Formats: sequence, structure tokens, C-alpha cells
Amino acid sequence: MDAAPPPLHPDLAELAFLLGAWRGGGEGEYPTIDPFAYEEEIRFWHHGTGFLAYAQRAWVPADGETLHSELGFWRPVGAGRLEACLAHPFGLTEIAAGELDGTAAHLASLDVPRGPTGLPVTRLERSYRVEGDRLSYELWMATERTPLARHLTGRLERTS
Amino acid sequence: MDAAPPPLHPDLAELAFLLGAWRGGGEGEYPTIDPFAYEEEIRFWHHGTGFLAYAQRAWVPADGETLHSELGFWRPVGAGRLEACLAHPFGLTEIAAGELDGTAAHLASLDVPRGPTGLPVTRLERSYRVEGDRLSYELWMATERTPLARHLTGRLERTS
Repeated sequence: MDAAPPPLHPDLAELAFLLGAWRGGGEGEYPTIDPFAYEEEIRFWHHGTGFLAYAQRAWVPADGETLHSELGFWRPVGAGRLEACLAHPFGLTEIAAGELDGTAAHLASLDVPRGPTGLPVTRLERSYRVEGDRLSYELWMATERTPLARHLTGRLERTS
Repeated sequence: MDAAPPPLHPDLAELAFLLGAWRGGGEGEYPTIDPFAYEEEIRFWHHGTGFLAYAQRAWVPADGETLHSELGFWRPVGAGRLEACLAHPFGLTEIAAGELDGTAAHLASLDVPRGPTGLPVTRLERSYRVEGDRLSYELWMATERTPLARHLTGRLERTS
């Protein structure tokens, strides 16, 4: 699945700044929990078609225990707009849309569909910014019980 | 993201038969298209937590052009039941549930949520079966215009 990639699809040019593997960490917070630190890897890759594949994993710095993981696809849809379709491990998916601003991408969920055992997340907003080999992002989350609040602030560096 | 895996989470024992990388291909069909052959890679891996990560990619045998790709998570939810949350590249996600039967897994979508540009898929059913180092599956699909019909029949072999 990770053979040498084919040429970049022209539709992906405006998302190419995200391509690569990124490693770093950040701080988690939320009104219902104690603040916590995490380490993280994010990877964006492509298959020569008009979408980016995306994988994220965050873990506890002390012991490497996985805290969260996401997989999915990001796709430009024209006029500086993008959509993302993501899967979360705990019974959720996420359909998001937003805009590109140079080497920044902003996404807000249109829907956070969940299965019978899914967590009661109702909204996610994400902003990613790349400056050289540094990727920073914020993620905001609302649940059925908690209004939109900042949950994650991450800073990563490109490793490949 | 692919370092040596931690020990298998006990909840995953009944899904462990899927773990590994699988390669092969199959036949595609649908009432609205000409039959076609494809090659494919499927990978299931884990991070020591109670879910499997899943990546699939299918391509045209002649030139390697990507036909389809899926990413997501499969998770046992007790009593031989499982749920899956998947992302598709073209504006869809999939929330599915089903049951395990030894080394077979059956999933039917509960919801196929889509974004503004998503394909009009309304239902997906999947059956996977592992016998030794062989994985076979069928995928059935309904769209807004076409009742449930077999779309994919694949046979893969374990490569790792």
C-alpha cells in the first residue's frame, strides 16, 4: 500500500502541503476532563487519484498506550473548498467541509454519524496550518452535554 | 505508525483471524456497469487497543490505477457482534454492524452518511471469510437508483 507513489493528481496540488509523515504531540483539554499531554503521528499520502488518505494516532507519552486514532480521506472539491470523510475507532464517523487558505485548512463537521455504541460527539472543528516542516492544529469538539470547546492543540514536524 | 505491535487486546481475540496484509483481486459487477477485474490489497492491524484498523485499496490490473480505497476501524462489541466505521474517498462514510461466525465476519450498513458531493449509496453488505491464509469476501451495494446487488467478489492471500 506504500509503494512509491504515482504522480500527484492535478486536483491535489492545493492540498500537497499536507503530504508526508508528521510527528510531535500536544495538549488535550476539555471541560469534563483533566488536561493531558500526548504524542502523535499524522500521515497524509495519495494513490495518484484526487484524494488524500489520512492516518492519525495519538498515544500516552509515558507508556505509548494509544489514546486515539483516525483514518480517512481529504478531498478538494473546487474553489478552495475541501471535504473530509473520517472514521473514528469508537463508533463514529465524521463528514466535514471547509476551506483552504494557502497552507492552512479549516474543516467543520457537517455530520458526526454514530453507530449504536458511538460516543455522543455532535460537532468537530479542525484547523491545520503548515509552515515549512511544521504542522500545527487545533481541534474543537461539542458533545450532547458540552458546548463546543477546544480539545486538542498539536504541533508536529515533518519526518518524511 | 507501523512499529512492532503491542500485545493483542483481549477484546480483539475473536477478530485476530483478520490481522495481517492480504493481496489478491477479484471481479466487479453491477447492474449499471460492465464487469471488470481488479487487484487489491487489504490490511488489518492494531495498536494494542480494542479495535482493528483497516485499509483497502483496489486497482486496475493493467496499469495500477486506483479504483477504490477504504479506511476505517472494526471493533467487537460483545456476544459475537461487531461494528465497523469506515471512510470512503468519494464523500461517504459507512457505519455497519454484524456478527462473527468463527473465521467469518458479516457486516451490513446501518447508515451510509454522505457529504454534499457523496455518491448516492444507500446500503452496503459485506461478508469476509478466512480459511488458512486465504481471505475471500463479497460486497453487495444498493444506490438510490439500484436495489441491492452483488458488486465485488474478492480472493486474497496473506502476505504477512
